[in-house]
Amino acid sequence: MAVKPIEGGVTAAKGFLAAGVHCGLKAKGLDLAVIVSQVPAAGGAVFTTNKVAAAPVLLSRQHLGTGPMRAIVANSGNANACNGERGMADARAMAATAAEALGIKPEQVFVASTGVIGQPLAIDKVEAGIKQAASVLSIDGGEDAARAIMTTDTRKKERAVVVDINGVQVRIGGIAKGAGMIQPNMATMLAFITTDCAINEDLLQEALKEAVDESFNMITVDGDTSTNDTVIILANGQAGNPPIQEKDGAYSAFLAGLKDLTRELAKDIVRDGEGATKLVEVKVKGARDFAAARQVAKAIANSNLVKTAIFGCDANWGRIICAAGYSGVDLIPSQVDIYLGDEQVAAKGAGLPFDEDRVKKILEGDEVAITVDLNMGGGMATVWTCDLTYDYIKVNASYRS
Amino acid sequence: MAVKPIEGGVTAAKGFLAAGVHCGLKAKGLDLAVIVSQVPAAGGAVFTTNKVAAAPVLLSRQHLGTGPMRAIVANSGNANACNGERGMADARAMAATAAEALGIKPEQVFVASTGVIGQPLAIDKVEAGIKQAASVLSIDGGEDAARAIMTTDTRKKERAVVVDINGVQVRIGGIAKGAGMIQPNMATMLAFITTDCAINEDLLQEALKEAVDESFNMITVDGDTSTNDTVIILANGQAGNPPIQEKDGAYSAFLAGLKDLTRELAKDIVRDGEGATKLVEVKVKGARDFAAARQVAKAIANSNLVKTAIFGCDANWGRIICAAGYSGVDLIPSQVDIYLGDEQVAAKGAGLPFDEDRVKKILEGDEVAITVDLNMGGGMATVWTCDLTYDYIKVNASYRS
Repeated sequence: MAVKPIEGGVTAAKGFLAAGVHCGLKAKGLDLAVIVSQVPAAGGAVFTTNKVAAAPVLLSRQHLGTGPMRAIVANSGNANACNGERGMADARAMAATAAEALGIKPEQVFVASTGVIGQPLAIDKVEAGIKQAASVLSIDGGEDAARAIMTTDTRKKERAVVVDINGVQVRIGGIAKGAGMIQPNMATMLAFITTDCAINEDLLQEALKEAVDESFNMITVDGDTSTNDTVIILANGQAGNPPIQEKDGAYSAFLAGLKDLTRELAKDIVRDGEGATKLVEVKVKGARDFAAARQVAKAIANSNLVKTAIFGCDANWGRIICAAGYSGVDLIPSQVDIYLGDEQVAAKGAGLPFDEDRVKKILEGDEVAITVDLNMGGGMATVWTCDLTYDYIKVNASYRS
Repeated sequence: MAVKPIEGGVTAAKGFLAAGVHCGLKAKGLDLAVIVSQVPAAGGAVFTTNKVAAAPVLLSRQHLGTGPMRAIVANSGNANACNGERGMADARAMAATAAEALGIKPEQVFVASTGVIGQPLAIDKVEAGIKQAASVLSIDGGEDAARAIMTTDTRKKERAVVVDINGVQVRIGGIAKGAGMIQPNMATMLAFITTDCAINEDLLQEALKEAVDESFNMITVDGDTSTNDTVIILANGQAGNPPIQEKDGAYSAFLAGLKDLTRELAKDIVRDGEGATKLVEVKVKGARDFAAARQVAKAIANSNLVKTAIFGCDANWGRIICAAGYSGVDLIPSQVDIYLGDEQVAAKGAGLPFDEDRVKKILEGDEVAITVDLNMGGGMATVWTCDLTYDYIKVNASYRS
């Protein structure tokens, strides 16, 4: 069940083409992506749980499950959220334009948008961009597609893996965007995954949900769940493996590959969190169950005070136990152990003398691990976040203008 | 039922003395406060709901309800939280030292601490400070007491009001501290209130809870609920009013005064929020009930993205409706109206053209009002918060060192 990372992203799997173009929603840079499977593909998707869901989310939800899918069209620079009836009409126009350009049906197209909320979409620019992108689709276009979905991201996020399924090489590749308004719930900002695996659509959806729960749903930049979060997967069967129809060894191998891919893409998002200088891994163990562990880990990962202390390389573990205490989980303070990296800084809820220089070095690393052991049971969860810095304020104090 | 603001704080009511001294927990500045009623007083208190409660909180909870109270002793510079058995012993030593110096019983003393979590208290310094403070108690000492409980606060917070209860002038005064780790639940950082009202202890406790729910429990600076939150009230009856024994007009008059006082102290805390440049009032109306309104208001008030936009004077109302959407409250996006100050910026969940210059001026004010109308019912709640700025990061990146 070996999973091996390979080069590439959304065109790493057989039978997928992509393109990214500049249509003018952003002042400069690519802002429109099209991803196409050359043959009909099983489709899966998970979307934001925000009650205020953007028009493209509402439309893609309608398209999911109507039959084989063929394409994804996405723009950056405008979220097409909170635009009323016009927003829905614009999302439908995006699907229709892509369908016409590609010679497929509108309901075979997933639509996604990301950017400012509450500003009408310049649909003429988007339609021109879709036509242009459709005319330059290629295997080499995956990287442009990755760039075309970026907003405050400072770097493209693409990953691909190959999985051996009973002797057949199956590829899974994906791209993602997201740096702020990140605390996905059922999905994150945007991630598009393609695979040449042959797999039943129900199993594909189930595998996607499980992988997303352990990856995109376990990261947070600022605790804000977006209106546009969307993860989409297309599986076109071009690898030639016997189609996966049940939860056998082949399914497990595929799931392992998908989990690896989504976890790495999710960590890429946190690493590129707005203003972030560090990736912070918060592991909570010894909880009554997984849900309790996750709740404590999320409280710690969302604490502005913990995140500023990590930015300042300050071993202020009191803020960590404080966040655990208000998480809503019933814990016993006098049983809590805390580690920064591999150095224990608190035992049974009270401070230990520790080597300040050694801990400072740990906190100065690019990746900082916080471990909290509640010593109450076997529940464990890991959440990834980033530090909170001056640049987060800078990026967000005038995003709209 | 007129409530009038008057000068002073914790010694504004008859029969109270106070002092603030420097005992050496902080490098400079006052760090130890003692407040005393000259006669036995009814006592009330509410404390943090954080599962990790500090030793002084645990001790004060034990003392509450054991009989008439006489004094409050509080230190800043060290929270005496997460210090194990030694922490409890130190809290008891603070009560015992104050009791001996004042000629009262240890269980008549409320104890409070605020500062860094998880560092043992220098109890010798604290004991010397308590003795010194007890020797300089005076009516003029209220202001020193207000200063002695400050940590990252940039200014003292004291307020007092006078209420006419059936022709008798009753005074209520208080001091508070707090600037970060502020999202009180049942109580806030530290607030000490004194009144010369004669009132039954059960009614006093009930009035305190109701006032705290509408004031300290409705503010947030950073969403972090402290381990040390404590609000204490002492009522010594020196005003000479007929003792309040039931929920009559006199009780209502007292409650109105107490609510005024606690709301102003709570807003003082937010105004002085770490790095804050603005007081932000988030009013949610048209919700199904009060709880739903509060939940939406808290989500908006705790959104880093909303708070940075306010700092940057950016009318990014999309972030406001986004936060409402993920608050967990079942709302109908296409019914939501949003106002910045008195300018409506969104109607039925979609943007309105608005006067950018006028809105920019509104956002540039010291106090910014956000109103969200869910148009679903009669539930309404107001939460106060502050903006999120570069200086919040600066204050918190190296608090401990």
